[in-house]
Amino acid sequence: MTATTSTRGPYAKTAKLRSRAIAIGIELFGSAGYNGATLTEVADRLGMSLTGLQHHFPDKDSLLTAVLEERDRRDAVRIENRSTLDGLENLILMLSESEASPGLIELQCVLAAEATSAEHPAHGYFQQRYATLRDEAARAFAELAEQGQLSPATTPASLAKMVIALVDGLQLQWLLDRGAVDVEAEVRTFLHAFIPAIH
Amino acid sequence: MTATTSTRGPYAKTAKLRSRAIAIGIELFGSAGYNGATLTEVADRLGMSLTGLQHHFPDKDSLLTAVLEERDRRDAVRIENRSTLDGLENLILMLSESEASPGLIELQCVLAAEATSAEHPAHGYFQQRYATLRDEAARAFAELAEQGQLSPATTPASLAKMVIALVDGLQLQWLLDRGAVDVEAEVRTFLHAFIPAIH
Repeated sequence: MTATTSTRGPYAKTAKLRSRAIAIGIELFGSAGYNGATLTEVADRLGMSLTGLQHHFPDKDSLLTAVLEERDRRDAVRIENRSTLDGLENLILMLSESEASPGLIELQCVLAAEATSAEHPAHGYFQQRYATLRDEAARAFAELAEQGQLSPATTPASLAKMVIALVDGLQLQWLLDRGAVDVEAEVRTFLHAFIPAIH
Repeated sequence: MTATTSTRGPYAKTAKLRSRAIAIGIELFGSAGYNGATLTEVADRLGMSLTGLQHHFPDKDSLLTAVLEERDRRDAVRIENRSTLDGLENLILMLSESEASPGLIELQCVLAAEATSAEHPAHGYFQQRYATLRDEAARAFAELAEQGQLSPATTPASLAKMVIALVDGLQLQWLLDRGAVDVEAEVRTFLHAFIPAIH
C-alpha cells in the first residue's frame, strides 16, 4: 500500500510524507515500543500537526500496519533461496550486515515481545509471521537434509525453531550490549553442529 | 526490600499491599510492558486510589524496581548448582515447570526487549543481568568441560551465550503460540549437540 511512484504533485508529496512517517515509526516503535509511542511524537518529529498527520495515518494502528508492511517488503528481498548451502551462507552474512542499520532489529525485538500479549494489535501478525518463518526454514532444511547436509541429531522442523530462536535471543543480547555478542559467529557455531558444512 | 514478615498491624498490612501491587505489576508489565503500564491501572486493579498507591510506590519506576527485585529473589532459588549434569538437568526441567505460571516469562520477554532502549529505566539492570547470566553459565560449562562433558565444537563462553539466547527466543515463540514450540525439548536437542550426556 506504500506509494513509491515519483510522480510530481500532491500524490508524490503524500508518498514522501508517508515514507518519512514510516521511517520515524520504525525508529519510535523500536525504541519506545508500540505501547510507549504516540502519534503526537511522530507528528512532532515530522514537524507537523497531529491533525495533519492523521490525514495520512488516522491512528497509531494504521501507522503500525504501514511499518510492518514496510518491514515485510524489505524482508522479502532477503529470504530467498535458503535451501542451498550458498543461500544459507548469504543469510548468515546478512546477520552482520543488518547490524549497520539496527532500527529494524530493534523494531523486531520490541514489537514481537509486546505482541505476545493477546491484546496487542500486532499479535496475529507476529503469530502468523513466526509460523511462516518456521515453515519456510523447515522446508529449506528439509532440502538440505535430502542433500545429505543435515546431522541426524535434529529434524528440519526442530532446527528451524532453534535457529529462529537463537537469532532472536542473540540479537536481544547484542542490542543490550553490542560488544558482548557476535551474532554471526555464534550462529555459525550453532549451525555447524547440525550442518557440518557451515563454518 | 520487599517486606515478608507476618507481624500484625499496619506493617503487615503494608507488606501485604506491597506484595499484591508487585503481583499486579508482574502481570501488567508482562502484558502491556513498562511503557504501556500505568500506576493508575495498578491502583484500579487493587481497588484503591492512585494517591493511596503512591504512598507505597510514588511512581512507576519504584514499582518496576520492586518487581525486578521480586523476580531476582525467585530466580536466586533456581540457579544454584548448574555445574554438574544433575544441576543442568534440574534447570532444563524447570523450563517446563515455569510454563505453569507464565507471568514471569512474559515479564522477562517484554521488559528485556523494551530495555534494549538506552532510555528505559531497566536498561542498566538488564545489561547487568545478561552479563551475569553469561558469566555464571560460562563458569558452569567450564566445569563441565573439565569433567570431559563438553564437545570441542564450542567453548564455555560461546555455549553460555547460545543457550541463553535459545531459551529467550523459544520462550518468545511459545508465548506467541503455545502449541507451536516445546521449549524443553528443543533445549535438550540443542544441548545434546554440545553436551552429549544431555538427552
